[in-house]
Amino acid sequence: MGLQVRDYEGVLTVELGGRVIIRHSRTEPWIYAGHGQGQYDMYRGNFKVSDRLGEKLALVDYAVESSDAGDVRVTFSKSGLLPLTVVFGVEHDRAVIRFVGNKEGINRLWLRLAAEEQEHVYGCGEQFSHFDLRGRNFPLWTSEQGVGRNKDTYITFLADKEDRAGGDYYWTFFPQPTFISSRKYYCHVDDSAYMDLDFRHPSYHELQLWNIPEKLVLEAADTYVELLGKLTAYLGRQPELPDWVYDGVWIGVQGGTEVVLDKLNRALAMGLQVSGVWAQDWQGVRHTSFGKRLMWNWIWNRELYPGLDKEIEKLREKGIRFLGYINPYVAVEGHLFKEASAAGFLAKNDRGEDYLVDFGEFDAGIVDFTNPEACEWYKNVIKENMIRFGLSGWMADFGEYLPTDVVLHNGASAEWMHNAWPAMWARLNREAVEEEDKLDDVTFFMRAGYTGSQRYCTMMWAGDQNVDWSLDDGLASVIPAALSLAMSGFGLHHSDIGGYTTLFGMKRTKELFMRWAEHSAFTPIMRTHEGNRPDDNWQFDSDDETLLHFARMSRVYTALKPYLKAAVKENADTGVPVMRPLFLHYERDERAYSIQYQYLLGRDLLAAPVIEEGQRTVGVYLPEDEWIHLWTGRTYRGGDIQVDAPLGQPPVFYRAASHYASLFESLRSLD
Amino acid sequence: MGLQVRDYEGVLTVELGGRVIIRHSRTEPWIYAGHGQGQYDMYRGNFKVSDRLGEKLALVDYAVESSDAGDVRVTFSKSGLLPLTVVFGVEHDRAVIRFVGNKEGINRLWLRLAAEEQEHVYGCGEQFSHFDLRGRNFPLWTSEQGVGRNKDTYITFLADKEDRAGGDYYWTFFPQPTFISSRKYYCHVDDSAYMDLDFRHPSYHELQLWNIPEKLVLEAADTYVELLGKLTAYLGRQPELPDWVYDGVWIGVQGGTEVVLDKLNRALAMGLQVSGVWAQDWQGVRHTSFGKRLMWNWIWNRELYPGLDKEIEKLREKGIRFLGYINPYVAVEGHLFKEASAAGFLAKNDRGEDYLVDFGEFDAGIVDFTNPEACEWYKNVIKENMIRFGLSGWMADFGEYLPTDVVLHNGASAEWMHNAWPAMWARLNREAVEEEDKLDDVTFFMRAGYTGSQRYCTMMWAGDQNVDWSLDDGLASVIPAALSLAMSGFGLHHSDIGGYTTLFGMKRTKELFMRWAEHSAFTPIMRTHEGNRPDDNWQFDSDDETLLHFARMSRVYTALKPYLKAAVKENADTGVPVMRPLFLHYERDERAYSIQYQYLLGRDLLAAPVIEEGQRTVGVYLPEDEWIHLWTGRTYRGGDIQVDAPLGQPPVFYRAASHYASLFESLRSLD
Repeated sequence: MGLQVRDYEGVLTVELGGRVIIRHSRTEPWIYAGHGQGQYDMYRGNFKVSDRLGEKLALVDYAVESSDAGDVRVTFSKSGLLPLTVVFGVEHDRAVIRFVGNKEGINRLWLRLAAEEQEHVYGCGEQFSHFDLRGRNFPLWTSEQGVGRNKDTYITFLADKEDRAGGDYYWTFFPQPTFISSRKYYCHVDDSAYMDLDFRHPSYHELQLWNIPEKLVLEAADTYVELLGKLTAYLGRQPELPDWVYDGVWIGVQGGTEVVLDKLNRALAMGLQVSGVWAQDWQGVRHTSFGKRLMWNWIWNRELYPGLDKEIEKLREKGIRFLGYINPYVAVEGHLFKEASAAGFLAKNDRGEDYLVDFGEFDAGIVDFTNPEACEWYKNVIKENMIRFGLSGWMADFGEYLPTDVVLHNGASAEWMHNAWPAMWARLNREAVEEEDKLDDVTFFMRAGYTGSQRYCTMMWAGDQNVDWSLDDGLASVIPAALSLAMSGFGLHHSDIGGYTTLFGMKRTKELFMRWAEHSAFTPIMRTHEGNRPDDNWQFDSDDETLLHFARMSRVYTALKPYLKAAVKENADTGVPVMRPLFLHYERDERAYSIQYQYLLGRDLLAAPVIEEGQRTVGVYLPEDEWIHLWTGRTYRGGDIQVDAPLGQPPVFYRAASHYASLFESLRSLD
Repeated sequence: MGLQVRDYEGVLTVELGGRVIIRHSRTEPWIYAGHGQGQYDMYRGNFKVSDRLGEKLALVDYAVESSDAGDVRVTFSKSGLLPLTVVFGVEHDRAVIRFVGNKEGINRLWLRLAAEEQEHVYGCGEQFSHFDLRGRNFPLWTSEQGVGRNKDTYITFLADKEDRAGGDYYWTFFPQPTFISSRKYYCHVDDSAYMDLDFRHPSYHELQLWNIPEKLVLEAADTYVELLGKLTAYLGRQPELPDWVYDGVWIGVQGGTEVVLDKLNRALAMGLQVSGVWAQDWQGVRHTSFGKRLMWNWIWNRELYPGLDKEIEKLREKGIRFLGYINPYVAVEGHLFKEASAAGFLAKNDRGEDYLVDFGEFDAGIVDFTNPEACEWYKNVIKENMIRFGLSGWMADFGEYLPTDVVLHNGASAEWMHNAWPAMWARLNREAVEEEDKLDDVTFFMRAGYTGSQRYCTMMWAGDQNVDWSLDDGLASVIPAALSLAMSGFGLHHSDIGGYTTLFGMKRTKELFMRWAEHSAFTPIMRTHEGNRPDDNWQFDSDDETLLHFARMSRVYTALKPYLKAAVKENADTGVPVMRPLFLHYERDERAYSIQYQYLLGRDLLAAPVIEEGQRTVGVYLPEDEWIHLWTGRTYRGGDIQVDAPLGQPPVFYRAASHYASLFESLRSLD
């Protein structure tokens, strides 16, 4: 479906399936162009980005011409200055707005897309604070997600002061210039430069782009389900997860073979369903004044994990997989750094030397993903040292730090490659798995992402939440994160049970761990993390009560296997995400559009996780349907209700009409 | 002295007395023009100002023509767009850069003045955090000064969170678009719109103006003393202070006739030299949930101050004056509001009603200073109710709050009048005093200011410091405040002894009070303030030791009377400020240019106030000269020294060559 362009009495109108997308006139132009110089101030993945704007011109003049292919070409300019030709056309049945011709001296574009006052907007990648993007602007730049992420909180203040790390509502590991409007169309900007998508104005959305993109892609549909189908057909979809994943939780443990096995065995003895043991220190640790850090030389560490090769086999026989860790860096002390450096596989500084990144008492080189040979080499590291060694999965960490002053093999500006980096990192991991023909058996999970991650990454996790109840950076925040990612075309999401970031006196409490576990039982994957300061945090095995509660939640999760598998398959086949906003299936319910702390898991489950400390009764909004409370069997018809939610009984409802009703009903009698 | 304009090989150069001020070429233009829409978000005098920028064009093209008057007219444009004619000329022997011709559709201007890498810049009104402005940008918008003023401090965090009041390094009651360069020229922008003067770039200063000004005024000189003489000849100078001022401190007390007299008598009995009793509640108080507030109806309150008319006479006979308080608002409950409202003297909202400002449980109207009749009326209030009543001075508070959406009598935009307001408020006070022919006897002091305050205001005070030791908002901050104001043409400055703002658990300590008093003894005026929460603060009479220390400092101050009077007279006659940066008299001393917590008091005293809690030995930098330590008589030749600074002996030095050496020496034996 293409774009309808009309030029009438000095007003140029562009429609997509009956929706006015652009309304341009001399007095209200849709396009501004100019140039500027981006300023990127980075400190350990925390960025302060600002612009030194050179010029900005409203391209009020336009001239329309039609081409033979049915495209409409319009040249916009300002009194002959900055002529920019825009082609409104179709490619593969998708509407595209292409920017062609001479773009010299232009590196800023402001595009205003027509908006309606009551319109809602979703997407922009993984957004932790606000699901509905309307009323705010969203700078898109992959970075740390911030610690606290709200200037009104003391934690944010401290993190800002200590490390410039407090962040703000839009900080994310996974930004993406894609949004879905409640006018049932999506718009995607095909570029990776810094952008700022501004949804504050009542009558337009303004896209500020720090590069002239190849194109904008737009499609419309009659339903959101159909729209997500189209978006994911364009961006790519995630494959199904390996079958073993659903057979239990992944326990995040570390400390060497003996410690790990001890923890596992105690957990198993207490009834925990375990499908994976995830040990990020499989490749060793180093000691810094900050505490224990990983070695960052990606090979089995025999000192810390004696006999691991054999143990992996034994675990596999018991149905338990072993997972590891990797990131895009190689520490200078390791053999991989030396190999990569010698071969010229590392990104360079402007003096042609290997660019070293300071990670706090140790330096690391950046594998240059723009160099195909470097990618092959790093893929081989994954294949040989990880897959063939026996790992069934790993955290593919980082991806969001690329400094803007590195010199890359492909000659592209790092300002432009910065956002693209996470998807390139995903692709490298994915190809390693695929080339080993292990996609049905091996999986990896990432926190950083960008356009392309949909196609290459097998699973996202929400990154580094605080071990607290804060809306912007605690348990609650992972729900809008999953939903906004879902509306950006990525349908598989989970989070560290209990959160990760343990700083400034934070300590993970028992209740937080339990509530987070209850939530995670209703996500595609259940995985724990000890956090950056394990001793300050309540862990899954800190006491028997916790372990028993966790074990029960693991049985709930494994009981859901057929349902979850089907939902994950649906995501792989059609792009309908596993965790879904309520309005996806209740389009006419206006309330549903502003709900960001409840979600549908698949078509038939509605979860309203407890996100407040001490809360034992929860207000839940149910769209009109026949809903059955999972733990009591009580039926509701929709509307605002209050439900009891003691520990162990998170508010979850299933549709009476569900094909899986009897499965859900069986959970009521589960120990 | 005019400007030399040269046009050679596509480079336009403008010089001022041999200094390159402008260097313009197509690739490095000096002028950008455009338009935008300012956003002013105000909460109780705290502003968040941002721009919705429409367009910005580099006016790279130029055409030079000379006029008969010797002026050089240059029309700058961008391919014929936004032609702006700039006249480089002379007026009253001052260089001026005038913007003439059609300015329609333009309300933004960016001007780049040539800079040198090692150049220092001072001024921009009253700047509390940074004296040398180089390396930072300074938005100029009169407002509250902020509470904390440093995003790294907890107080700032709390103030931001509670009241959006934390502020930042550039927040000030008294901004001014005037700067003095170490290249020995000044530049003044003749306009009152929002501006942002940016001194961050090594090769230029960028002035961002939100209006096309009438003109820029520039003058150069061979010395800073001469330069300040020229600047103040242009902007105006303050008159001398009444003679009685120097005879002691002004005690800030309140609570009614009896309380005030009791406090005074105890202080006198302990040896305090008092020249004034300053009672801000002379016009009554009101009780709100916030605490005690003033009545804001400007007339003697007979209930709270019975017999005040007689007491004022009695005090005057003892050589003690009585001072009061006024501000530009009239509270709705008072008779003045009713009078002003009935006469149409109040600023209006867009519905034509009196614009009411919420001051927290009470509303007040804004006397419209753009209405000459309203000014006459308000002057009469001052004349009749204050001067003729017997007040010898007052705090003329506020002036910085004018909302940008008020409708004014003169039809000018409040966005443009906002910055101008404080100087209009000063002028009204000044005219009231002058028309009563009392300038040698009555004085008033203000915190808010702008261009014009030099001419109209008789004395500035530093506003509302925190009762703490913070560099950005405590005792230390009043020194750069005085010095930057001095470099902006305002040479009389003092501060609330002990600070004012007492929030978020702050309490003024005894030591802070004593150190602040020691500093104030070496300023033109010594005045105390109880602070906004008097009971939380250490006061001058909180114990005998404090009172005795304060009394001694008052004797130091009064002993300095001949010296201070002469310095104040010099300021009135020549514009050389009373408190001076070290480089003013030691131009070749590079170190002197970066010193902001020491100052010269007049020509012969150098003060280095103790600004750290608990400090008893202080590092002082002395420029090359023969300096004698005030309390020990020890001689120094200059350089970095350490001096003992027990309580009561703030580090102060005098020049051995001083005409006043024996006076200074006498202080050594003062009790």
